[in-house]
Amino acid sequence: MSSSSAAPGRGDRAGKTTMRDALVAAAFRLFLERGYEQTTVDDIVALAGVGRRSFFRYFPSKEDVVFPDHERCLADMTAFLAAGADDDEPVRRVCDAARLVLRMYAENPAFSVQRYRLTKRVPGLRAYELSVVWRYERALAEYLRGRFAGRRDGILRADVIAAAVVAAHNNALRSWLRSDGRDDAEAAVDHALGHVQAAFGAAPAPPAGEGPEDVVVVVARRGAPLWRVVQELESVRGRG
Amino acid sequence: MSSSSAAPGRGDRAGKTTMRDALVAAAFRLFLERGYEQTTVDDIVALAGVGRRSFFRYFPSKEDVVFPDHERCLADMTAFLAAGADDDEPVRRVCDAARLVLRMYAENPAFSVQRYRLTKRVPGLRAYELSVVWRYERALAEYLRGRFAGRRDGILRADVIAAAVVAAHNNALRSWLRSDGRDDAEAAVDHALGHVQAAFGAAPAPPAGEGPEDVVVVVARRGAPLWRVVQELESVRGRG
Repeated sequence: MSSSSAAPGRGDRAGKTTMRDALVAAAFRLFLERGYEQTTVDDIVALAGVGRRSFFRYFPSKEDVVFPDHERCLADMTAFLAAGADDDEPVRRVCDAARLVLRMYAENPAFSVQRYRLTKRVPGLRAYELSVVWRYERALAEYLRGRFAGRRDGILRADVIAAAVVAAHNNALRSWLRSDGRDDAEAAVDHALGHVQAAFGAAPAPPAGEGPEDVVVVVARRGAPLWRVVQELESVRGRG
Repeated sequence: MSSSSAAPGRGDRAGKTTMRDALVAAAFRLFLERGYEQTTVDDIVALAGVGRRSFFRYFPSKEDVVFPDHERCLADMTAFLAAGADDDEPVRRVCDAARLVLRMYAENPAFSVQRYRLTKRVPGLRAYELSVVWRYERALAEYLRGRFAGRRDGILRADVIAAAVVAAHNNALRSWLRSDGRDDAEAAVDHALGHVQAAFGAAPAPPAGEGPEDVVVVVARRGAPLWRVVQELESVRGRG
């Protein structure tokens, strides 16, 4: 793999290029040179110097080579959620799980930005991406359904929060991709997820010394928009 | 179209069966008898007694005949949002827009339930459905982005609320489909969307006679979950 390649290199990080990395690098070189639709799996394996069967050992289809890290990331996210403790605040936990996905993108800015441009141009890849996003959302919703089991509207609540987390994550991710990977991805996602936590999450545990008697009083006009009241409430609660 | 057919009948409602309706009815009869993958467009047009070109005049692909009303519903939703007044509460407006989609399903319970079972079995149709859902979500988000233009985090807020509305709608829709279309679809979606409005929307306008001096006081522990505080706030504000 040339040093100018933007393909993600798990092998590179370990100091060597794997066949899988070589296939991804060859695929992206051709997608950028010729276009995605005009590139065949045969073209990719010829450039990478391997056989067709090697390609399909790693990637079920040509689309999968465009998103080589999502399966691993989905597995990481599922494991992360399963490893949570019973007293984890559930909304915070799913926000932290979403951060794993952003980190995958942020680890390889040049590759992520290339793929973003490619995906925008190819409808089939956008459809593929939607199905991947849906799987992340289902993983988050499944975790929340478990945590909210037995609560009134637990499933509804789980589904709505999972969707909100994914939307906030994608909003931050898109902003970062549009900055060509130059902005601070972590700061963007923290900001976006903070919004979801403010709407749905529990407040942080009170610092030591503050007892349950420590109260906040909110006075609001009956007709005031609820989001304004919540915003005010958040800012008051945030003050030491 | 036979009276036992569950295909949606815009023509039926007007008292006559259109060629489009006949194609949908023929397609679903074959999908249920032989399976979706085993049915070709040629099979469908043969049963409907029309030519291939007639099929493609109405439906770009075989997948589109499975979701014959979404284009119209998307257009209706976009028109509904565009026709809104400047003083419409934005979250309420997108919730009302989502109700249009549910109504499309609820108008033809038997057809909707048939399609739900078919879509669950065919991965390609699930992918198609995700792309339709994404278009509804974008329509809602675009409207909200316009309404929140100039506000801090307006785009983020728009995207998160649109996703939450779609998730709540889909939660209600799935519950109704699982009841084989027997439950009250409108009540289910009202309940689900009420959840989103409680989290993000403004309260209803105060009844006549209540002035801006009419206040609500909420006292909460600093560590109390925000959603509990909001729930309390909502219930207090709801009381006359």
